[in-house]
Formats: sequence, C-alpha cells, structure tokens
Amino acid sequence: MSKYWSQIIQALKPYVPGEQPKDNCFIKLNTNENPYPPSPKVIDAISKETDASLRRYPDPNCEALKQAIAEYYSVKKGNVFVGNGSDEVLALSFISFFKQRQPILFPDISYSFYEVYCRIFEIQNIRVPLTAALNISLADYAQPNGGIIFPNPNAPTGKLLLLDSIEKLLKQNDRSVVIVDEAYIDFGGDTAIALIDKYPNLLVAQTFSKSRSLAGLRVGAALGSEELIEGLERAKNSFNSYPLDRLAIAGAVEAIRDEAYFQSTCKKVMETRERTVAALSKMGFSIVPSRANFVFIRPKGIQARELYTRLKDEKILVRYFDKPRIDEYLRVTIGTDADMQTFIEKTAQIVAAA
Amino acid sequence: MSKYWSQIIQALKPYVPGEQPKDNCFIKLNTNENPYPPSPKVIDAISKETDASLRRYPDPNCEALKQAIAEYYSVKKGNVFVGNGSDEVLALSFISFFKQRQPILFPDISYSFYEVYCRIFEIQNIRVPLTAALNISLADYAQPNGGIIFPNPNAPTGKLLLLDSIEKLLKQNDRSVVIVDEAYIDFGGDTAIALIDKYPNLLVAQTFSKSRSLAGLRVGAALGSEELIEGLERAKNSFNSYPLDRLAIAGAVEAIRDEAYFQSTCKKVMETRERTVAALSKMGFSIVPSRANFVFIRPKGIQARELYTRLKDEKILVRYFDKPRIDEYLRVTIGTDADMQTFIEKTAQIVAAA
Repeated sequence: MSKYWSQIIQALKPYVPGEQPKDNCFIKLNTNENPYPPSPKVIDAISKETDASLRRYPDPNCEALKQAIAEYYSVKKGNVFVGNGSDEVLALSFISFFKQRQPILFPDISYSFYEVYCRIFEIQNIRVPLTAALNISLADYAQPNGGIIFPNPNAPTGKLLLLDSIEKLLKQNDRSVVIVDEAYIDFGGDTAIALIDKYPNLLVAQTFSKSRSLAGLRVGAALGSEELIEGLERAKNSFNSYPLDRLAIAGAVEAIRDEAYFQSTCKKVMETRERTVAALSKMGFSIVPSRANFVFIRPKGIQARELYTRLKDEKILVRYFDKPRIDEYLRVTIGTDADMQTFIEKTAQIVAAA
Repeated sequence: MSKYWSQIIQALKPYVPGEQPKDNCFIKLNTNENPYPPSPKVIDAISKETDASLRRYPDPNCEALKQAIAEYYSVKKGNVFVGNGSDEVLALSFISFFKQRQPILFPDISYSFYEVYCRIFEIQNIRVPLTAALNISLADYAQPNGGIIFPNPNAPTGKLLLLDSIEKLLKQNDRSVVIVDEAYIDFGGDTAIALIDKYPNLLVAQTFSKSRSLAGLRVGAALGSEELIEGLERAKNSFNSYPLDRLAIAGAVEAIRDEAYFQSTCKKVMETRERTVAALSKMGFSIVPSRANFVFIRPKGIQARELYTRLKDEKILVRYFDKPRIDEYLRVTIGTDADMQTFIEKTAQIVAAA
C-alpha cells in the first residue's frame, strides 16, 4: 500500500493469469493456447510489415482489420470493434455499458476477470450461481440488472448455451446490454453474431488468441449494433488511440482470411478433445461436456490439487482453481495428440501410485 | 447517443489524434513521428520473433524489456513499468494516482489527452494558465491538488523546464504524485529519472514512438519509486494482462540497446530543427524555443489556419489547433532535411502569394 495510490487501486484484487514458465520444457496445458502455430500467411504478412513503416503510427481506426472481420461475418464495418485482446475489449465494454445504477449479473463460475473489471470501474455485481450440473439457468437472470455477461462456451466448464437460449435471454432482457464472451466459440459452438441485427443490446466478444493461434499478438474484437460499437469507440478513444500495432493489424487480417487453415486447426483440436475425453472417461474421471479447447475434469482416485502438483513435477502444466465449487476440478487445455497422450499416460501413472 | 451507454460514455469528448492519411504522397509533419526508420537491430529482433511462438501469450510482466530499460537508466527493474504506448501508461497512471478528492493540475496549453482521461475516470482538474511567454510558473502550482502532470518539453510549445525547477516543484509538492511526461525529452532535455530515488511521488513517463522511431509498435514506459510502479501494475493487471505483444517486447528491447543508432538519429533531428528554426526566423516567423522534435511557430504574413490549409493542398501536413491562445500557431514536426527544405520553400511561396 502507498499513500499515493487512489482508493480504487488500494482496494483492487488484480487478475492473475496462468503461469508462463520461462523455460520451454513444459507441456503447457494451462492457458488455453492453441497447440498449432498461426497460419503461414500470418507470418508472411507480419514479415512484410516489419520495415521502416514502424516509425509511423498505425491506423487508429484499424479499418483494414474491421473490414476483414465484417466481410467474414457478413456484417457492416460499423458493427465491428477491435482491441488489444478480448481482455481490453471487455474492459472497455464494462466502462461503456455496465457502469449503471443496477448491478450486473454473471455466473458464479465464470471468467474471473469479470469481478476484477467491476472493482476497477466501481460496478456493482451479482454472481448468479450455476445449477448443480454447472448450467446457466435463464430464469435466474430475470431480475433487474445493469447488464449481463457470460462466456459461451462457459469457462472454465466448457459448457455451451445454445443460440435459442441466448435469444430467449435477449427477449427477456431488453433494457441492458448482454455480452456473450465467445473466446472459445470456434471449437464447436454457433456464434451469436447472427443475432446482432435483431437485438441492439447484444454485444459478442471474440479473440484471436485461441482458435486463430495468436495469443502472442494481442487482438480481440466485439460485434454488435452500430450504437454499441460507437460507445466502445468513444471509450477506446478516451483511453488509448492506437492499442493495435501495425504488425498485429497485418497479422490479424490474414488470420481472418485464411479460412482453410483455421478450419483445419480447429478440427484437429476438437478431434483431440474427443479422444482425450474418451481416455479420461475410461479412467473413471468425470468430464464436463466441452465445446471449448479445454476440458474441465474431476479426477478419480486423487484430489485435483494433488494431481495438479504431481503433473507439474512431471513438467505438465494444467490449471487448478482454488475456489469454492470448483476446487475438485482441473482445467486442461487441449494440446497436440502427442501432448495429450503424454498427459494421459502420466495422469494414469500418478493415479495408480496415489 | 444510445440508452445503453453509461453516463460517463455519454459525457465523453474523445481525443482526436492527428490525421493519418491512407496514401503516402504526403510529407507528414503532423504527428511528431521520427523521420528515420527504427534501428536495423529492431527489425532483426522482430523478424526472429515472428514464428510459431506467436501462438503463446507474451510474458505478462515484460521482464526482458523492464530489465533492458532498468540497465539503460541504471535503476532497478522494480522502478520500471511498461505499457501499450505512453498513452496507455498515462491512462493507467490517472486511475492509479489522480483519482483523489482534490483536483489535479496541468497547464492550459498542454497535451490535450489529459482532459480526456479526466473525463473517463471522473477526475476533477484545474487547467493552470501558462505565462504570456508560454512558460510554466511554479508558483501557480503551489495550491492543494490531487496530482500534477505536464509534458517536458511541453507540447505543443516545445519549451523545456530545467531539472532544478522540477526539483523545486517536487519539494513544494510532496503530498501528491507529480508526473513528468517526457515523450520528447531525448531531443535536447535532461530526464528527471535521476530524481526518482529522492522523490517517491515522482513518475516519469516515456515513449518509444518518437526518439526510438517506433510509433507503429506501441511501447511506452514509466519510471518511479517501487511503490508507484506497484500501483501501476495493480491497475494494469485489473485492465489487460498482456498489453504488449511478443513482437513489441522483442523490438523495444533492441531499440533500448542500440545506443549508437539512437544517438545518431536524435542528433540528426536536432540539427535539422536548428536549420529549420534559422530559415523560418529569416522569414520573420516567431518560433518558440524548442527542445522537442517539433517547432511551434507563429507565421508572419498569413494566418496559421490559412497556412495549414495551403500546405495541405501542397501535400504537406502540419498540425493546427483550433483552440484559444494557440490558434495563431502551427506545430511542425521535424522531418528529414529534404522534407524541411520542401516545407520551407512551399511556405515561402504561400506567404509570398498571400
């Protein structure tokens, strides 16, 4: 603590991202990165942009990237906002739409950054419990609110809410903004972008960090009605005019355009996920049905925390959350087939020895 | 306006950066970019990092970059914060230190983003008038305040406050944070970083966009006592864990290390500035003494706004601010010798024809 800190900063409990070990000897299944590299076309595009033009500011409006995203989803450029990863997009969304008199609503088991944004922007919130089966119950969200946000698929559970449920939620909640955080949607869900024309209060957040293999480049996006996008632009232009650098813009444009590569890597991850689920089920583990690039598992024959520690000893990193309701689970990112084979073998050995 | 916007967003007047024309036919003297490309070592470092590792998140703590900056300035790594351009660094500083009961103080003629940050973070402020000669008068800052910020050299005037004046200010103001925004310090001023050990309330902000030719890469830094840096880290980790991508970190490290290149380009800019000042003085223009990579000039024989427009017709962009006290001036970035030769010749022609 320091007497120079503002009261808000004194009261913060900052977000703690998953470990990023400095040596490369770990099999990293802890931060939901894609096991496959970005498209070769992305690498080429960045290389071409790495020149004397770096002395110049980037386009503050990122028109080229917005255009590429708009074309991909068949929407207007005015329906697209881009930012420095979906975390920045979400932060700006909280200040733009969620700073209201009523508290916002989100699931109790969810992306833990939501609570952190609420603290820094002084936003009241109600954490709505998932059902015992870890589902979102729409009826629980039929209460006065200043906004609603949830990941879809949810994190860290991987559970998907279907589009018709999202539409029901939008129908019952037309007074505040509903943000669907689709960080993991490309691994087996349908995006809610199809609904933005019909519901002016729907904002869909996406990221290039997972399905497009670009966690290291920091690009995220939001799609919604032009009035919501304009609100986000106002917030962004009051915070940082150029959050995306020239290389990030160039790379992200190609990532959106290389559909064949994108589809092939998503397919591989989903296939590996199903093989992983089958193997873990055989071992008697409970596995939450996942439509994401991770699985949320409840080990059998060993405590989750113990398995996490033993796997780390074996140079395999997974994510353990020391929180009520989920402290008997582990979240395991889907890696390559070889990664997952090693993970399963080591897990079986650890359980056998426990 | 939209009913879904928060009240804060409704009340914003976002910052408007200088024009970034899409075609390259302009001589761009409007956004204080460096006329020289980044060091070849920066280009090499980025190229080496442009590979499969982009699928991985960057180091959220940017240890390599903090270490390079700490070594350069002979301070501890814990004295260094880095962000996505100095704009993001400043935004996080406002929320960390300036959200206080008392209003913050900054010059009436100054970087116009300061007012914008105050609006988005709901911070009261007093704009303290510069003297008639466009100087900061320390006595005017001897009043209760929640913080003080000014650019040094000031923008858009280019005027430098000497270190002993800054130390006097710090002595008279030990209850709140003083931010010295040194975006332009490398073009002829002495950094206040030498004072951070002595004054725990001093924060020095810097950018890689100007003297290090990396506007397109988005890297900024702040140096100060460990307690101030810790406050900034708390804010950053409540907003966006990874604002610097892998390529920006790699490039910025080399930009700091290539001292010979840095010194040679700064020297060229300063020499060109002095030649430009001499030529404009001959034409009877008033020129504010500049220690930055721009000059703030008051034309003779033509209105500033008119000269701005005519130069634009000639494909030369400079910056005109339509604001009280400075609407008879133009801010002209120092380009290459050839750029400035063209600027001076065209200006002379325009004035002669006026």
